[in-house]
Amino acid sequence: MEKIQLAHGSGGKLSQDLFINVFQKKFSNQYLNEAHDGAVLELQGRRIAFSTDSFVVSPLFFPGGNIGDLAINGTVNDLSMCGAKPVYLSAGFIIEEGLEMGRLIEIVESMQQAALKAEILIVTGDTKVVEHGSGDGVYINTAGVGLVERDITISPKNAADGDLIIINGSIADHGIAIMSKREGLEFETEIKTDSAPLNHMIDGVLDVSENIHVLRDPTRGGIAATLNEIAESSNHGIVLQEEMIPISDQVKAVSSILGLDPLYIANEGKVLVIVKECDAMKVLAKMKSYPEGEDAAVIGKVISNHPGRVIMETKIGTKRVVDMPVGNQLPRIC
Amino acid sequence: MEKIQLAHGSGGKLSQDLFINVFQKKFSNQYLNEAHDGAVLELQGRRIAFSTDSFVVSPLFFPGGNIGDLAINGTVNDLSMCGAKPVYLSAGFIIEEGLEMGRLIEIVESMQQAALKAEILIVTGDTKVVEHGSGDGVYINTAGVGLVERDITISPKNAADGDLIIINGSIADHGIAIMSKREGLEFETEIKTDSAPLNHMIDGVLDVSENIHVLRDPTRGGIAATLNEIAESSNHGIVLQEEMIPISDQVKAVSSILGLDPLYIANEGKVLVIVKECDAMKVLAKMKSYPEGEDAAVIGKVISNHPGRVIMETKIGTKRVVDMPVGNQLPRIC
Repeated sequence: MEKIQLAHGSGGKLSQDLFINVFQKKFSNQYLNEAHDGAVLELQGRRIAFSTDSFVVSPLFFPGGNIGDLAINGTVNDLSMCGAKPVYLSAGFIIEEGLEMGRLIEIVESMQQAALKAEILIVTGDTKVVEHGSGDGVYINTAGVGLVERDITISPKNAADGDLIIINGSIADHGIAIMSKREGLEFETEIKTDSAPLNHMIDGVLDVSENIHVLRDPTRGGIAATLNEIAESSNHGIVLQEEMIPISDQVKAVSSILGLDPLYIANEGKVLVIVKECDAMKVLAKMKSYPEGEDAAVIGKVISNHPGRVIMETKIGTKRVVDMPVGNQLPRIC
Repeated sequence: MEKIQLAHGSGGKLSQDLFINVFQKKFSNQYLNEAHDGAVLELQGRRIAFSTDSFVVSPLFFPGGNIGDLAINGTVNDLSMCGAKPVYLSAGFIIEEGLEMGRLIEIVESMQQAALKAEILIVTGDTKVVEHGSGDGVYINTAGVGLVERDITISPKNAADGDLIIINGSIADHGIAIMSKREGLEFETEIKTDSAPLNHMIDGVLDVSENIHVLRDPTRGGIAATLNEIAESSNHGIVLQEEMIPISDQVKAVSSILGLDPLYIANEGKVLVIVKECDAMKVLAKMKSYPEGEDAAVIGKVISNHPGRVIMETKIGTKRVVDMPVGNQLPRIC
């Protein structure tokens, strides 16, 4: 009898299968079938975006953040990826009996700080408590509502031949911060999560270009999973330039100690912007004007060759296929 | 050091304290502070309702339903309680590793059936998987967006002197169905959950009266907790007539076996409608025209005496204070 495995929650191939064979099959409708980070909906002549994420990160506290700000930034970013301005958030807590009240308060304070930074309001919520041993400290669900004010359609389907792929900074920081903490690794300079709200930067990007085709945040499964999804949805190929992908020396070092490939490691403050080539330089410049986009770089291109596949041209001049991950070596990363 | 207890999730006094001292204190804003079942928000000149609930019911399957339809009906009803028409729902799953795929599919099918019945769409979602022992089968969060098309304000604050209190049928069915299943009690006729979507009936009620002051679904903590909240928010007293409160003989019998007071037991398909006396009879007639309102009855009155308190006139002619529950004898009821 088939059972749910950790990999079903990894953001890789098994997650995709579960979505297609169970959720999409049963719930099927025009909005859900888009399989985007959130849904863009019609509501009395207005376009709104609606998104949800549950957070089960372990440990609850890690360098640079905790489950609280992660839960706010995650949903803020999912709404932003729809081209929406995030406005309202909900927060649902599933708390394990025995959690120290002080820890909960710290988490809630981080949520409030993150909400302030993103300029959104937490307007409704819910709290459930489960017995000791039926949870793990606290799990947080956030859902969010945003407004799509611009007359645009952002979708992974829209990647087009010749589009450039821009990322706003170094990859794999979040996943490596969590793993270092779990493994008890200590470094001179601590690797911190990149968790951040991206809505202001995305708004700036949409201001300077009407040719943004895709916005996606490469969370679970890293840029490898996200780019494979885009290649599949758009039926185009993607070519990455390894030497252009921003990655810190520390993350490189720790990844190799842990035997992990940074392409597959989660980010929580990164966005992949896929834009018509003619607008790429002004979009890049705009991104660099925000602190969360300082290290932005063009990392690849959309092509009509090898549709559905992601290929990386390596530093040593060879080519490597970047596959969709099946599962994930990092459970409970967000 | 203070720790989270099961009672913090009970819907009683400790839940209220947690909301006021932690969540409201940190997140404070005009919408959240209403402390309603959902928030009524302004969005580009439209009024929308937004609500969320996490479901951790144990066992996952129980007479008359499972966690799936419960999760849909719960959020549909929370939106209805704001006077909104529920339109879109999100679904976030936290699955424990090892859950049988077949069980998940059964749950998802029930969600789809419930969504069809309520005429809403599940448009976005998320799945996380936690290790065996860090969850309990599956927890489901739903959030919902609805439209408030009528020019009305429904709020527990609005209960006014002389208003009548109507309930749409028998109390405590859901809680007793869950408890019977947990305790392994068997009866000739099974007690089933009352879980149902109330949006169509509420819409009908709002059609016939512009004097609906309060709508609340008495879930965790039963009608006792909900009526105490209303008495407190509105600064009015409430008088209940014990003999008018619909309750099945079986529920009465099982409650007394288990030593539980039905006033404090959760419902999942009930609504307390508080309406100006002059409209009460037409509202009652309207409710009775729906299957989920067949057994509707006037059960009490709002008065200006003893503000903040709920008193019940018993069948034997005495009076009894119905207090706010502190914790709850029934964890994980929804």
